[in-house]
Amino acid sequence: MSKSYNVAILGATGAVGTELLELLANRNFPLANLKLLASERSVGRTLSFKGENLPIEAVSDRAFDGIDIVLASAGGSTSKTWAGKAVEKGAVVIDNSSAFRMKEEVPLVVPEVNPQAAAHHQGIIANPNCTTILLSVALWPLHQVRPIKRLVVATYQSASGAGAKAMAEVQTQSSAILSGQPAVAEVLPYPLAFNLFPHNSPLNEQGYCEEEMKMVNETRKIFGTQQIRITATCVRVPVLRAHSEAVNIEFEVPFSPEEAREIISRSPGVKLIEDWQANHFPMPIEATGRDEVLVGRIRQDISHPCGLELWLCGDQIRKGAALNAVQIAELLVEKNLLKPLAISH
Amino acid sequence: MSKSYNVAILGATGAVGTELLELLANRNFPLANLKLLASERSVGRTLSFKGENLPIEAVSDRAFDGIDIVLASAGGSTSKTWAGKAVEKGAVVIDNSSAFRMKEEVPLVVPEVNPQAAAHHQGIIANPNCTTILLSVALWPLHQVRPIKRLVVATYQSASGAGAKAMAEVQTQSSAILSGQPAVAEVLPYPLAFNLFPHNSPLNEQGYCEEEMKMVNETRKIFGTQQIRITATCVRVPVLRAHSEAVNIEFEVPFSPEEAREIISRSPGVKLIEDWQANHFPMPIEATGRDEVLVGRIRQDISHPCGLELWLCGDQIRKGAALNAVQIAELLVEKNLLKPLAISH
Repeated sequence: MSKSYNVAILGATGAVGTELLELLANRNFPLANLKLLASERSVGRTLSFKGENLPIEAVSDRAFDGIDIVLASAGGSTSKTWAGKAVEKGAVVIDNSSAFRMKEEVPLVVPEVNPQAAAHHQGIIANPNCTTILLSVALWPLHQVRPIKRLVVATYQSASGAGAKAMAEVQTQSSAILSGQPAVAEVLPYPLAFNLFPHNSPLNEQGYCEEEMKMVNETRKIFGTQQIRITATCVRVPVLRAHSEAVNIEFEVPFSPEEAREIISRSPGVKLIEDWQANHFPMPIEATGRDEVLVGRIRQDISHPCGLELWLCGDQIRKGAALNAVQIAELLVEKNLLKPLAISH
Repeated sequence: MSKSYNVAILGATGAVGTELLELLANRNFPLANLKLLASERSVGRTLSFKGENLPIEAVSDRAFDGIDIVLASAGGSTSKTWAGKAVEKGAVVIDNSSAFRMKEEVPLVVPEVNPQAAAHHQGIIANPNCTTILLSVALWPLHQVRPIKRLVVATYQSASGAGAKAMAEVQTQSSAILSGQPAVAEVLPYPLAFNLFPHNSPLNEQGYCEEEMKMVNETRKIFGTQQIRITATCVRVPVLRAHSEAVNIEFEVPFSPEEAREIISRSPGVKLIEDWQANHFPMPIEATGRDEVLVGRIRQDISHPCGLELWLCGDQIRKGAALNAVQIAELLVEKNLLKPLAISH
């Protein structure tokens, strides 16, 4: 009989938490028990899992007793408070927040790219930022064939990146505008319906926002090189749950679009969507609910002999967050990477 | 008494035509008479201009009798049919279609950039494509100080670029989706509400769409140099009438963001919108109805020593089309450029 594991979801009620539940059920993760943890105000609610109603429990030290894997998606400060305690209890924490991503001792893992990094974990493994995951899955197969020198990225990020409330807000705003009422912005800083704006994360002194610097720093860490030069402009758009990215890639040497296309076609986690005749390429509504990052419009950059242009869309909640976390959990199970730290229980 | 002119609008009923009427009224263009021309099916309708109801007349050879300036915005095939005939009658045609833009003998004019080009017209002056106009106005002042070497642009283009019907369609689709109905795409090839897709203009053999090649070719023609290397990814987004562009600029030599900011601040047709404290930068809803191209997020490109990143928004119908055409008409009047071809009438 194969082993099964006790899993806790920290932040079970959010957009990513909901997706984690669905993925654990649909992918038949070898679960012994599933525990749902959230803040005090969600206690008393239940969430459906495989036909059962699971109660939401308040997070506490004792909540992690006997847990093998924590899937944390409750924001950075919650992760900072609880991840260490969960690890002390013998759990491995797969953390979706940005709290630990750039810590040297914490592996930052995209299973299609750097599964080997997971082996060195000391209890915490970080799940990268959504835009970084999507970009990494699409570019890694190309980078392995000929190294990437520089990236210029522009993103088209859905409301889901700011959570379920932002997704609801853009719909409420759209309804308001369509009936001649003003759009009220409460979750996001500006109206997003029929509008867009540069990503509203804090700006550094150079004028880059946090979201952009995540793409720069996390991509380098995942790819295991500080040599790739990266610049990004991150923009929030009125789309519900899939991100898109226009990616200009400069390689060290020329890379033909035909070869890039062939490589993408046979790489894991990506799907080439290119119907040149019908002018049909990846779109957020088609990426929604899918596991793969959709890639298309691969073409020789007419402005640079070593350049390729590429367009991608991916489900922000799924591969951009929940799916990647579950894949890391599956990797831990498959490679027996829970053991070294497992305290008997 | 200052001279006044007979103006005809060809394509008066479209989104750009409507804006042309408003601009001619509000800017107090020295009009003698205004004639509204459209296809047969609009004949019988009237449009309001300065409190008067002007009839729409069918376009014909004789319709151009006595006309000094034709503002044409009825699509490429209509322009190809009628522009020559209007010129034969002594009019100067300012054409908003792409029909004549790349013809060597036709000036392609953005008044803030290359007003001198208008002097060499032979009866037709072309109004550039919307994304090109917005980009040109923002970048020209920088290019004059230190030459631009390469541009990597990603656009966020509103529905208005596909006309008034596309603007209505994205709203109808939004209503449908919000009430749980499917989004029907009739004007645009795919649903645009809560979605986006690469620009649906025809693709060339290299995989660039027409919209992208317009940016490449028209920008070079307006700037008077074939040396600038340009690549672009054009994307349609669910915004009503202002386009945005994420622009990565590589100069021949370094260009400090402070200097760029100072130059933009004092240049015509652009407005710097940068509140770093409040994370407030140009947005389509704020660019809507404004004459200026809003520019912000000017920052040193951390991936290139000679790079700057810049973000812009501009009203697609106004500066991206109608306003630029009216400014060209004003330039013709001001510089007395109607005369050489004017046949007495």
